[in-house]
Amino acid sequence: MSVLVVGSTALDSIKTPKAENPRLLGGSASHAAIAASFFSPVKMIGIVGQDFPKRYLALYRKHNIDLTGLQIAEGKTFHWSGEYEVNMNNRRTLSTELGVFETFTPHLPESHKNSRFILLANIAPSLQLHVLDQIKKPKFVIADTMDLWLNIALPDLLTVIQRVDAFVLNDSEAKQLTDEDNVLKALKKIHRLGPAYVIIKRGEHGSILSGPSGLFVAPAFPLERVVDPTGAGDSFVGGLLGYLASTKGSIEKNLRRAIIHGSATASFCCEDFGLTRTTKITAADINNRVAQLEKMVRF
Amino acid sequence: MSVLVVGSTALDSIKTPKAENPRLLGGSASHAAIAASFFSPVKMIGIVGQDFPKRYLALYRKHNIDLTGLQIAEGKTFHWSGEYEVNMNNRRTLSTELGVFETFTPHLPESHKNSRFILLANIAPSLQLHVLDQIKKPKFVIADTMDLWLNIALPDLLTVIQRVDAFVLNDSEAKQLTDEDNVLKALKKIHRLGPAYVIIKRGEHGSILSGPSGLFVAPAFPLERVVDPTGAGDSFVGGLLGYLASTKGSIEKNLRRAIIHGSATASFCCEDFGLTRTTKITAADINNRVAQLEKMVRF
Repeated sequence: MSVLVVGSTALDSIKTPKAENPRLLGGSASHAAIAASFFSPVKMIGIVGQDFPKRYLALYRKHNIDLTGLQIAEGKTFHWSGEYEVNMNNRRTLSTELGVFETFTPHLPESHKNSRFILLANIAPSLQLHVLDQIKKPKFVIADTMDLWLNIALPDLLTVIQRVDAFVLNDSEAKQLTDEDNVLKALKKIHRLGPAYVIIKRGEHGSILSGPSGLFVAPAFPLERVVDPTGAGDSFVGGLLGYLASTKGSIEKNLRRAIIHGSATASFCCEDFGLTRTTKITAADINNRVAQLEKMVRF
Repeated sequence: MSVLVVGSTALDSIKTPKAENPRLLGGSASHAAIAASFFSPVKMIGIVGQDFPKRYLALYRKHNIDLTGLQIAEGKTFHWSGEYEVNMNNRRTLSTELGVFETFTPHLPESHKNSRFILLANIAPSLQLHVLDQIKKPKFVIADTMDLWLNIALPDLLTVIQRVDAFVLNDSEAKQLTDEDNVLKALKKIHRLGPAYVIIKRGEHGSILSGPSGLFVAPAFPLERVVDPTGAGDSFVGGLLGYLASTKGSIEKNLRRAIIHGSATASFCCEDFGLTRTTKITAADINNRVAQLEKMVRF
């Protein structure tokens, strides 16, 4: 089944201690949509400016991403610029130019409103809700977020959390949202806000799923070289939902394996700047890492 | 088969934001020996002073720990005093009084020299070597350490690392030892120092084993309430080797499951001060958490 992805479509300029990369293809929707595309057909909702490079549109198309819902507007594409410190764990935003995102209202083409698997990738919660309002009969809705929305749009974010099947956030966001240091206590509080499934991302330490059948502790794929982790969280949730939409049977039955596919997909994202590595791999490469992860946790 | 444990036997005075507990039973050998005792008979090597409370000797005996190798010397028992910060991740040593440990030379009773499973729990590397020198035909030797020995006794520690089958350390120690931020690169460098197996402890994020058949990523047992993590690493390695000594078949085949038993044992240690909780449980309680961990990683 196809996956509908809404999120940011951006140009990212990324500095690390070793290199500088201007105007890479970025944004949560770009990472998530391409990650999902390895497993399911993807429809992407977003907006870019007239400066958006044609080669990036070609890259979406190469991954069979339906761009009917991608607006090309007058003005400049959303541009994020950031810098990583030596250990790649701390990121600093240098500048954010919203450009065409400033006035973005996502209108879903009629053909998109029947989508069943919905990924509300990281973007303003009001936009996530605006998309969700247009979906007729969702089967599984998953939302991701970031600390910015906890700080400036908490009421909208709480409405998102209440309306989704699965909510994804990282451990520091979980702590901020719940005022709980302990991950189990934080999970309980987030469930009380609505979602049946909560997934806490822990970077190189993997992720934890909490749901009706208890906890699932998922490893990250261990990497010898992390070049640029930007978009890894978006790739994770994209790979996850793309895989899930491709499976038969219950969500409950398939979600754990979907998370592992998300982990494996995200690992490639970290191995080069932006989407450079991810756009060079195939589903077989991801499946190979899934098989390796399977061996790594077996006892 | 029985396990020989050498390490510190101490009194611990532990402050946390919520409580203060003077002169608890502590030390790496105490934690490791009691953890191992749930699975195998244990012989403990150590030294205490004449101030060592009789009720702690009774506690060792309750766990069938052979105390033939425990010296009771004139003077005071090693006393460690420390304080935890609010999130329980940062520990600060307030005072260390070596007492009888200042002149300790471990002499193994004849009956101990044929031990096959040897646990060199955290203690000065020279003492670990002194014990190892007296063992006739070890089958599996595992050593733990702490940052102190990296700082003040590195040459001896490197000799320990070279002579053991498995070396255990936490992630910050691995970084200090190898000057590598990346865990896979650090593991490779440590293997080059000698051991076939390297286990990196990551606290609440579990542990990683690297050995001849690749990586094993092991979860920690998730806890809702961490009261006092002192000794959790010692309990981990004690439970691990105690379980391993109780199994049939190759080390390679049983080590992963041994690590999970170590994780489960260590989780109890964190749930109260010192050995309070660990000395109230049974092997069945540990096995129950092993079964839960099995469900938490399955996909």
